[in-house]
Amino acid sequence: MRQATAMIEVQTSRQGLVEVTRAIADWAEAQRLSEGLLTIFCRHTSASLLIQENAAPEVRSDLEAYFATIAPEDPHRYRHDDEGPDDMPAHLRTALTQVQLSIPLIDGRLALGTWQGIYLFEHRRSPHRRTLAQSIRVVEI
Amino acid sequence: MRQATAMIEVQTSRQGLVEVTRAIADWAEAQRLSEGLLTIFCRHTSASLLIQENAAPEVRSDLEAYFATIAPEDPHRYRHDDEGPDDMPAHLRTALTQVQLSIPLIDGRLALGTWQGIYLFEHRRSPHRRTLAQSIRVVEI
Amino acid sequence: MRQATAMIEVQTSRQGLVEVTRAIADWAEAQRLSEGLLTIFCRHTSASLLIQENAAPEVRSDLEAYFATIAPEDPHRYRHDDEGPDDMPAHLRTALTQVQLSIPLIDGRLALGTWQGIYLFEHRRSPHRRTLAQSIRVVEI
Repeated sequence: MRQATAMIEVQTSRQGLVEVTRAIADWAEAQRLSEGLLTIFCRHTSASLLIQENAAPEVRSDLEAYFATIAPEDPHRYRHDDEGPDDMPAHLRTALTQVQLSIPLIDGRLALGTWQGIYLFEHRRSPHRRTLAQSIRVVEI
Repeated sequence: MRQATAMIEVQTSRQGLVEVTRAIADWAEAQRLSEGLLTIFCRHTSASLLIQENAAPEVRSDLEAYFATIAPEDPHRYRHDDEGPDDMPAHLRTALTQVQLSIPLIDGRLALGTWQGIYLFEHRRSPHRRTLAQSIRVVEI
Repeated sequence: MRQATAMIEVQTSRQGLVEVTRAIADWAEAQRLSEGLLTIFCRHTSASLLIQENAAPEVRSDLEAYFATIAPEDPHRYRHDDEGPDDMPAHLRTALTQVQLSIPLIDGRLALGTWQGIYLFEHRRSPHRRTLAQSIRVVEI
């Protein structure tokens, strides 16, 4: 049994969903292991993780629009605005989604469904460099 | 140490919560292991997982009504409607809940609280066959 | 390889966020392990877990106010009120957040980001004793 860990960096350019499936799956599958559990942990409080449909691009724009509506920018609603009007909505949108995902590795592949992609959800308006901690725990073949 | 994996199928008949606690706990406990970590992963983008109270049935109907309100069917709100008006709300309700749960196995039993049940939350109106990937990683007794 | 498990109790005094980072990190780091995966599981349906910013206290009060707005107390909305008007909103707020978190342990420390704290989110108005099941799976040095 062994565990591999890595930090991966994701550069975001704007608010919204950035697909990271390929980078994560490549790393996981490069460990050349048969069975295991991959955990991805987002080390931020204004960016999060989401598994969602990776086919129709409208799903992503609808998701982005939805979270802008459900946790809107509105200075009158929040006391915290240290980093601007998108600061507190970013924390709320993070709280409503996830900072951690674990995905079984079965027969050497992540057990993602056909239409599932892994996304980093950037909730701040300006570009950020985000760090994901990855850990995979494996039974060697 | 060993890992057991399985795919379980859940047939849904309508939008709403389907309890899967028994099937999952039976499988986990049938591994006859003392300590471990069970991970359940829902391989879909319009169905999700939820741990919620398994006593009063009104909790389930209130939960279903709540998610119908917070992420409503309304063709004017969404661009994505490839599979009908319940398509995009299903993605949103999935995003607001979870596609993955990990539950410690302690002394041979899942560490669920007294009132906790595991539910598959079907977000589409029509019946679907849903697949959950299960993985348990264990220290053998 | 070994697994350590523990139940920790958290006494809440009111609705809102209680930071538990120190207790959890101390326990995890006391196992004196290099690499591992910590899983925390909240055994309740009206209290949940949240990783959020642990610097500005306004973030916490804004988060509490937000969840009170998005899943409000309002007897006309819900059928379930066995334990009072804060009962069903507590289930909803739990469903919108998490009952389980897994955090990689890397080089003997939890891979939390600089500004991330782990919170128990008490959703009931009255004080409760909450139990968190903790499990850490480790490769011994």
